[in-house]
Amino acid sequence: MSQPIPAAAGSCGADDIPDSSELQAARRRIAAQVRRTPVLRDEALDEMAGCRLHFKCENLQRGGAFKFRGACNAVFSLTDAEAARGVLTQSSGNHGAAVALACRLRGVQATVVVPRSAPRIKLEAIRGYGAEIVECEVAQASRDAATRIELERRHSAFVHPFNDRRVIAGQASATFELLEDRPAIDTVIAPVSGGGLLSGTALAAHAIARSIRVFGAEPAGASDAHDSLARGERITGRVANTICDGLRAELGPLTFTILREHAAGILLADEAEIIAAMRLVWERLKLVIEPSAAVPLAVILRHPETFASRDVGVIVSGGNVDLDALPW
Amino acid sequence: MSQPIPAAAGSCGADDIPDSSELQAARRRIAAQVRRTPVLRDEALDEMAGCRLHFKCENLQRGGAFKFRGACNAVFSLTDAEAARGVLTQSSGNHGAAVALACRLRGVQATVVVPRSAPRIKLEAIRGYGAEIVECEVAQASRDAATRIELERRHSAFVHPFNDRRVIAGQASATFELLEDRPAIDTVIAPVSGGGLLSGTALAAHAIARSIRVFGAEPAGASDAHDSLARGERITGRVANTICDGLRAELGPLTFTILREHAAGILLADEAEIIAAMRLVWERLKLVIEPSAAVPLAVILRHPETFASRDVGVIVSGGNVDLDALPW
Repeated sequence: MSQPIPAAAGSCGADDIPDSSELQAARRRIAAQVRRTPVLRDEALDEMAGCRLHFKCENLQRGGAFKFRGACNAVFSLTDAEAARGVLTQSSGNHGAAVALACRLRGVQATVVVPRSAPRIKLEAIRGYGAEIVECEVAQASRDAATRIELERRHSAFVHPFNDRRVIAGQASATFELLEDRPAIDTVIAPVSGGGLLSGTALAAHAIARSIRVFGAEPAGASDAHDSLARGERITGRVANTICDGLRAELGPLTFTILREHAAGILLADEAEIIAAMRLVWERLKLVIEPSAAVPLAVILRHPETFASRDVGVIVSGGNVDLDALPW
Repeated sequence: MSQPIPAAAGSCGADDIPDSSELQAARRRIAAQVRRTPVLRDEALDEMAGCRLHFKCENLQRGGAFKFRGACNAVFSLTDAEAARGVLTQSSGNHGAAVALACRLRGVQATVVVPRSAPRIKLEAIRGYGAEIVECEVAQASRDAATRIELERRHSAFVHPFNDRRVIAGQASATFELLEDRPAIDTVIAPVSGGGLLSGTALAAHAIARSIRVFGAEPAGASDAHDSLARGERITGRVANTICDGLRAELGPLTFTILREHAAGILLADEAEIIAAMRLVWERLKLVIEPSAAVPLAVILRHPETFASRDVGVIVSGGNVDLDALPW
């Protein structure tokens, strides 16, 4: 990453982390727009895992992913003057669709910078919500360059997919709902890519009780978050190698800072385990989920000792998958 | 059907139809065992259909289908002396698994007579719940013969898949939940095969308000219920030709009597429409549903004038589908 786009640059401190009142304000701001998604259980999966699993179904969220929560909070946080200049973002898929949908609901113009490798179904969703798409090359540097050019041209408000306190505060709302519905939960796990979901999950859980353990789940083929936290410094510039198209980003300065403080650990699963877990969710829970959303269950089945006999909240991140290209 | 099995024989009158208090007793009897499944909506599907669709997700029920409700009520209605002789049923799949699961929960021995054509995933589910399987030929006469032989041998309690007031009363509970959650609903639609689900749906809806319209949805390739109601007499002995493996049975005397009184009509959809509707539910609602469960949406999209601007409750009957043999 040569010249990072504004929101992903620099370092950050405690002041940059949304506090409990900011999280609650976000929840209120988006309450009328988001779906309160159900929490599902399955006895057979509990037996396999050796713990009680509570699946928070964000694949059933508007736009088919948790991303709508953060995007909605960011877009509805803008002043009218800011909103009038439109919103711009950069995304390989779900965040782009989420921003496009949030902008349509507020009546604001949206532009999404998208790498050519993005899945067809996610591109169609972005277009379907009425956003303008700007295609670019796959490398992060190309995405950033295209984003900078568009920002200079349009003076739009930029909504980063994860390294943005408004986005993180929006993602937190899923975990507030989950812990309200299932107060027995003592462990929460979510996939980690850029870290926006996991940061919001951890901040919400710890706003409720500091004793709740919050784990990240990451593909072994894209283990930059795991390695960054282990080493104590943010690793960038790697090429991810995973079927999980939603988990190829790297932590930003803000999410790295939050996760260093709040994550109990990042656990890994390999590709075969992720695909097996994805199929288990389809067969047992009858939910269409994308590979990224299966990583937490894959991690739980690989590391049963970490979750044994616990009440585990699992954030099912999204369900936008090409039904003509299933991985089995 | 030469010598029909006991519960499917003869004719019946008003006394055979479960009344409102019987329906309520069934609901209480199974409340601790069944899942209260969520009701989902999707703006894009509403736009396509021209009405407000409320999907009652019985694919998320235990055993992956609504069938658990009726089976559970029948099994838990038995006296201890009856239960001690075990339970026998005949099913091509979901009902067999449901009886097996209900019996396991009550600690009762279950035997399921299954045609050789039943889908692998459904057979595995029946075995997984610990029931004994007796295989027979596909024709209804062979199923009935095998069932009679087993009944004479074991003296078990027989739980018919649909032509049984206890089963019908159990299925009714899904619609009670749906109408409690969404009181604006003025139209309900469910798939029809033997008619147990549709009978329970109609009785529950009309116990709430006689003005609620209740439609059946049937594949055009298995239109015996449609034709039976149109002609005013029960048609039997046809060979169904549809991908919907859950919808190949024929109405029984009891369900025919109930539907003649309570169904606003049976609407048909062809195979291509059913497969397209199934895919729409997977893509938009992110739910794994089996072909049978897609027939109501297929019917709604084919007959939009019947549903225009209504609040329509859609019973999503089940999600037990072989992920290696999807119809697209």
